[in-house]
Amino acid sequence: MNTADQWKSLSSKKEIFRTKIFAICSEPFQCTRTGAEIDFITLSSYNWVNVIARTTEGKILLIRQFRPGTMQEEIEIPGGCIDPADTSPEHAAARELLEETGYAGENARIIGKVAPNPAIQGNFCFTVLIDNVKKVSEPLMEDTECIETDEASEEEVRSMIVSGKIRHGLVLNALFFSFMNRSCL
Amino acid sequence: MNTADQWKSLSSKKEIFRTKIFAICSEPFQCTRTGAEIDFITLSSYNWVNVIARTTEGKILLIRQFRPGTMQEEIEIPGGCIDPADTSPEHAAARELLEETGYAGENARIIGKVAPNPAIQGNFCFTVLIDNVKKVSEPLMEDTECIETDEASEEEVRSMIVSGKIRHGLVLNALFFSFMNRSCL
Repeated sequence: MNTADQWKSLSSKKEIFRTKIFAICSEPFQCTRTGAEIDFITLSSYNWVNVIARTTEGKILLIRQFRPGTMQEEIEIPGGCIDPADTSPEHAAARELLEETGYAGENARIIGKVAPNPAIQGNFCFTVLIDNVKKVSEPLMEDTECIETDEASEEEVRSMIVSGKIRHGLVLNALFFSFMNRSCL
Repeated sequence: MNTADQWKSLSSKKEIFRTKIFAICSEPFQCTRTGAEIDFITLSSYNWVNVIARTTEGKILLIRQFRPGTMQEEIEIPGGCIDPADTSPEHAAARELLEETGYAGENARIIGKVAPNPAIQGNFCFTVLIDNVKKVSEPLMEDTECIETDEASEEEVRSMIVSGKIRHGLVLNALFFSFMNRSCL
């Protein structure tokens, strides 16, 4: 049995609050099994992309930036929103990589896709792998961005995962997709 | 250089909206490098736990439920919020496992921890591994919950990851931690 068949929407989704990065929506549903009603609260935002950028030596680009959620610097990989002007996740990945790090590469392709949190979000985060990246320009940071770039070997990245230094869930999804892509899993 | 040193809070965090599952907060910051000011928007909620529950035959418990974010049934693993009454992530994991599936097991221990989205959330999601689970009771579902339980072999789980049937980012984090725990990565 598909559990979705036990839910019936009672009226259309309504926006109840909006910030500059997401909207909060509410939609009343009824569970047809029990008759109980509930307002499901969801967060509406763009799709996201994150980038596994590999140098010709097999190093992976990492970025560091202060994150207001955890209130500290996080070790991540390049990425961001897929804007309406982006023609594809691969296009957004190459754009974010260049803007955040000044690097560019070849052969951008999607190696994974996750729903960051289906309980409250309907968007997706794509992982794009880009080969043979090298620095071609200075980063194009906005005046409210402060991003540092590092290159790390795969062994260093694995060690940072095991020690918990890399702990961003979506970044870990991307790194695991890249390991899986190379037949480890 | 630690990028966090380039940010200064201009006043305390304020709650600007609240739903029954999270609060939205705003806090003004200044980038000391450029002088630019920005209101950082964050989502405040409990910590979460998800559970890798293994039977004595090595099968993994999966659950299926309708998710209002993606508006369809998702294949996941047991889990939920760590409530104030839970004494630890392991305690919350055993409680959620029993409530959602009616299964219980032994030797609950944390095998991973992620920050689901440090850009906007400060909470953590712990992955707890529980061995030798078996069905001991009927699930204790609320009348607005509808959850189906399945047992799957590790091969079946890997196949569902590769095909994209399992696509919940935090569930994938947990499954990868469990593969890593067994020295695959």
